[in-house]
This record gives sequence, C-alpha cells and structure tokens, in this order.
Amino acid sequence: MNHTQQPPPADLPAIDWFRHPALRPDLDSRAAAAAHQAQLTKPAGSLGRLEALALRLAALQGRPRPRVEQVQIAVFAADHGVAAAGVSAFPQAVTAQMLLNMAKGGAAISVLARHLDADLDLVDLGLATPAPTHLAIRSTPIAPGSANLAQGPALTMAQLQQALGAGHAAVLRARAAETDLFIGGEMGIGNSTAATALACALLDQPAAALTGPGTGLDAAGVARKRAVIEQALALHRNGLGDPMAALARLGGLEIAALAGAYITCARSGLPALVDGFISSAAALAAVRLCPGAGDWLLLSHASAEPGHRAMVTALAAVGTEAPLLDLGMRLGEGSGAAMALPLLRLACALHNEMATFTSAGVAAADADA
Amino acid sequence: MNHTQQPPPADLPAIDWFRHPALRPDLDSRAAAAAHQAQLTKPAGSLGRLEALALRLAALQGRPRPRVEQVQIAVFAADHGVAAAGVSAFPQAVTAQMLLNMAKGGAAISVLARHLDADLDLVDLGLATPAPTHLAIRSTPIAPGSANLAQGPALTMAQLQQALGAGHAAVLRARAAETDLFIGGEMGIGNSTAATALACALLDQPAAALTGPGTGLDAAGVARKRAVIEQALALHRNGLGDPMAALARLGGLEIAALAGAYITCARSGLPALVDGFISSAAALAAVRLCPGAGDWLLLSHASAEPGHRAMVTALAAVGTEAPLLDLGMRLGEGSGAAMALPLLRLACALHNEMATFTSAGVAAADADA
Repeated sequence: MNHTQQPPPADLPAIDWFRHPALRPDLDSRAAAAAHQAQLTKPAGSLGRLEALALRLAALQGRPRPRVEQVQIAVFAADHGVAAAGVSAFPQAVTAQMLLNMAKGGAAISVLARHLDADLDLVDLGLATPAPTHLAIRSTPIAPGSANLAQGPALTMAQLQQALGAGHAAVLRARAAETDLFIGGEMGIGNSTAATALACALLDQPAAALTGPGTGLDAAGVARKRAVIEQALALHRNGLGDPMAALARLGGLEIAALAGAYITCARSGLPALVDGFISSAAALAAVRLCPGAGDWLLLSHASAEPGHRAMVTALAAVGTEAPLLDLGMRLGEGSGAAMALPLLRLACALHNEMATFTSAGVAAADADA
Repeated sequence: MNHTQQPPPADLPAIDWFRHPALRPDLDSRAAAAAHQAQLTKPAGSLGRLEALALRLAALQGRPRPRVEQVQIAVFAADHGVAAAGVSAFPQAVTAQMLLNMAKGGAAISVLARHLDADLDLVDLGLATPAPTHLAIRSTPIAPGSANLAQGPALTMAQLQQALGAGHAAVLRARAAETDLFIGGEMGIGNSTAATALACALLDQPAAALTGPGTGLDAAGVARKRAVIEQALALHRNGLGDPMAALARLGGLEIAALAGAYITCARSGLPALVDGFISSAAALAAVRLCPGAGDWLLLSHASAEPGHRAMVTALAAVGTEAPLLDLGMRLGEGSGAAMALPLLRLACALHNEMATFTSAGVAAADADA
C-alpha cells in the first residue's frame, strides 16, 4: 500500500493543473527505512550516497523497501523552427531518422533500454520532415515542430497545453504498467538552443553564461547559437516573467512534454530520473510551475554541456538529488539517466537484501571506538 | 583470438616473477574499435568516458568488440596484528564473521555479486579467530593474520610470496572461468591502517597526510591510528626503499594478495577493476613492482577515505583509468568496483550494438557546421 500515490486525471488536464503543488514524500516510510538500514552489516554510512538514495526512494515510493524493477523510458521527439538559424551540427531530418533508429533498436537509448529491461515509449510530438512509420512509434503530432523562437513564440498556449498533456499521458501509461521509476528522454535537432534560452530565462542568466556546443558545434557555431539566443531573449524580454509563458515562448514540444511528465510524476507520486541538459531545462520549468516538484526528481548525470552546472545548482536548491554520474556524456535521448539506473537498482538491492548484524551474528562497532 | 593474453605459470611463482613487466595493450584492436565507434549513430564524443572505456577494454582484451560478461570477484580476508593497537571501530572477530556473512549471501558484496551475475571467490588467507567453515569459503591460511606492523614487519618474505601467490592463483581461477574482467575485494579489521602506512611509504607522505577514519573512527580514534602509523613508518624507515620490502613490512596478507592478483592480470592480459582505499594501496604496490601494470587497472570509484585522493593521482600518472564513480562509499569488500561494473557492461553494449550512420540511414554532422 503506497499512500502517497494518487491517480492523475485521465483526460487532458487544463493548463493550470500543472501549477498545483506536488505531493509530499512519505516521511514515515523514510523513517522505517532508516531504522532498517541502521541494522545492516556494514559500518554506518559506508555505502555513502547509496544509503541516502534508498531512503529517498522509500519516501517517494511510500514503502520502507523501495524497488526500481519496472522502469519506463519515454522519449519525446519534436522539431524546432530555430534549427533554420544554423544552430546544430546536424540537419533537421536527423530528428525523424533518429526516432526511426530508436524504434529499430539501433540508437543508444534502444541498446540501453534493452540491456536494462526497461520499456521504451517513443512519442512523435511533431516533426518538420515526413514522420517515420513504425509500430514502436506513437505518432501524436501537435505541430510540424515548434516555431522559430528567435522570431516569435515557439509554441502557442494551446500547443503548450497539448505538449504538457503528452507528458502527462506518458506518465499515465507508465503508471498503468506499474512503473517504479519514470525516465524521460528527448530527440530534436536544435533543442539545446531552446533549452539554453529557456534556462537563461528561468535562471535570469545571459546567453553567454549558458550557451555551449550541444551535439558538436565549433567555435563559430557556438557564437552563432549564442547570438540567436540573445536575439530571442531580447525579443521575448517582456513575456518571460511567468514560467508557463517562458516555456511557451522559448521551449519546444518535447521540452514541454518532459516538464508535463515531471509535474505529473510529482503530483501523482512517482519518482523521476532526469537525464542531461535538455531534460534539466524541462525540470527547471517543472519546479518553477509546480511547488515541491524538486523532491520527486533525481538528476542522473552531470552533462558535458557547460551550462548544465547552473541548472544543477538551481535544481539542488529545490531538493532535487544531485547528479549521480559525471562521465562527460552529452547525447540526450535519456541515455545518461539509463546509465544511472543500475545505481538505483543496486542501492535498493543492498537496502532490501543485506543481512542485519543480529541475523548474521556479526558484532557491531565498539561503543568506545 | 586474443593475442595479448598469455597463461601465467600454474605453480606458485618465485617472488621475482611479480617484478617483471606487464603485457602491452593491443593498439591494433584499439584502432579497429575506434574506427567502428566513429560510425555509430551519435555525435562524436557524445558518450564521453563510455567511448574511451570501450576503446580501452578493446585494447586490453585484444578484440575490437570488448565484452564484460563473465566477471570474477575475488575477496581476500585476513587479520592484522595492528588491530591490537585499537585502530578500528570494530572488534577483530568481525573479519571472520563478515567472511561467513559473505558466504551466506548477506554482505554487501554478496548482494551485488548476485544481482550482477558475477562469480564470488571467497579466500581466507589467515584469521586471528577461529575460521568459519562454509563450502563457499576457500580456506588457505598463511598465518593467523599478519604481525603488528608497528612493532616489526607485518609479513615475512615467505609469507609475502605465499600471499602474492594467492592473488596469482585467484586470477588463474578467473582465467579458467573465461573471465572478461577481474575484481578484487578485501575484508580485514585494521586493514585501513596497513593500507595507509603502505601508501605513506610508497608515496613518501607523512601519516598525517593520508590517515582517515576508515570504517568509522572518531577524532580520538583517528589520532591514535595516525600515531600508530607514524610509529610504524619510523620503525621501518630504513627498509622501505624497495616496494617489495614495503609491502612485506607494512602490508597484510589480503593487501599482498590483491597486489599479486593485479600483477598477474597485467602480466597475463586481463583487465582489473580496482575497488577503493585498501585495493588502491595494493594497486600502488603493483604498479611499483610491475612496470606497465597501470595500463591494466581501472579505478572504479573515489573513496570517501580522504587519503584516497593521493593514491588516485599517483595511479593516474602511470596510466590507470580515473575513478568512474564518486558516491562517498567506504565499505571495501569490492563493493565500489561492483557498483561500477554496469557502466563497463553498458559501455560495451553501446559500442557493440548501436547502429551505424549507414545501416540506420541517419545523416552525419554537416561538414560546415
């Protein structure tokens, strides 16, 4: 019995549903987990962050013995009008090509999901090129990509509501599959530009502070990208005070879907493991919209994208778990979160399966040591 | 066909066998792996250290498609005479109790080995209390623990040879099981004192620079431990110039076995994933004894024990892979290495199973980006 979980609405929520507070973690389950953990046959604290992770998952899942067996990875794909400004090292057709590659099992996230026995939920939210057809792709296009954020709002408020709802629906599917942990991923040529612009707005930072090479721009490309973001921030400067407006003006369909998914997790009681730079921008929007959502988010890794550090700091300030890995990854797709998944699983296994001092007949630490 | 691997001698090697150079990694396999990696459907470099890990394993395993399926975790248990000086938070009987706990499946390393489908090879090298009897424990005692290193040499040279040989024999067993990767672990109340003293000798550092709380000493306990190590360094000061002598005077049976195992890996062509503080002290001895051994070692994690940082720096200088995880762990048993194992496995899976740009019909990066 998990008393913290509540079913979210089954229909497309009104946009203001995403502004309501998150559930509170279950401190009774956490306390029971801590009492159990203190009896395990190891020096107190010697498993480091694995111990804190087990307690956190206990509080989030509302059970003293947390588990991360059933995992759903939802990857949201969408195109970005800003790609026309030459902000990516890859042509825009790659969004659709990579979505098909994911469906066929050849992308990084496909390989990882297979090896981790996680369900992969591929969602096409709107591509600028002909959409791939494959049984494994859920085709629910909202628009043929977002509009160019340097020339106007990326999304209308109606598109934003649909994109938030697409994230909400993915979490409904995850809950129906009795998922223990939600992972979001994304694919969208140009989306590091949108994520950077959104983060600049939410963190009140200039473009120069957060712009990086994304998938592999050279110095001239980074300069061009920074100029595009500066242009967008100037264009929208009077419309960024509300995080919902910032998400519409500077985000994208898949970024909004990730934010909607995180908020739905936080409002219905499901922990979410956050991937890298793009996902963290969505997480920033989520915690600004939904008070308390930070409790439900765990950062999986520190991205190689330089602007990620500022996002991590801001998310940590609202209770998000600090990154678990720092491997210089910058791929997206949910791949960094997938890499961190075994750490959570093994943290639970240790918590649940280690012997206690009493059961194993092992002496505890000397009282006078 | 793995041309870099060579069978080590089947009998107990003479002590000087451990001073001979390591094999060289196979650069042809590395180059073939790099050519393959460049074709995978991801931006170049976007998998960060996972890419470098796959290439390193390719070079060490002598195959362009590395794998880390079969894994052997050898845990060496031994007692330490220096425990009489009150340098641990736990009574000495815990060494034997925890070895039995490992055999029964209740220790952290038991849980991890089970979930990771790794073989666990438990080796009793000499306990001060009655040895536990269990089918899963290989009982090959060399002495009832080492002598008190603060009062004389911890090991005789004959004991050292036997302990190095026990590590050698464990790697022979791993090779017979067609192991892809060797992990060493240890259990021994008092062994962070021995490891610290040995590291001080090998790194030419004072006790104050490297001494920490181990399994959980309070400030008074750390001060007592530091004084014991200072006493030992003073006593042996004229006998520490040769790393073999330092290992005998300040090490311990399980520390020497780990050093012997790492050297046997390096001399026979098997990569080894190194655990934390105690294992790194053994690794330091190994790289000082066996030129080139650092190439064959991968550090799994940064230990919470403060002196580990200096060891990591010294090992990195001879080519050892930098720590993959930094989770504040300080348990030993091989548990940190076990936690990092999924990273290696997934790095290999990505390298071996991702689609190429050509096979997936995905456009590569723009040439002019």
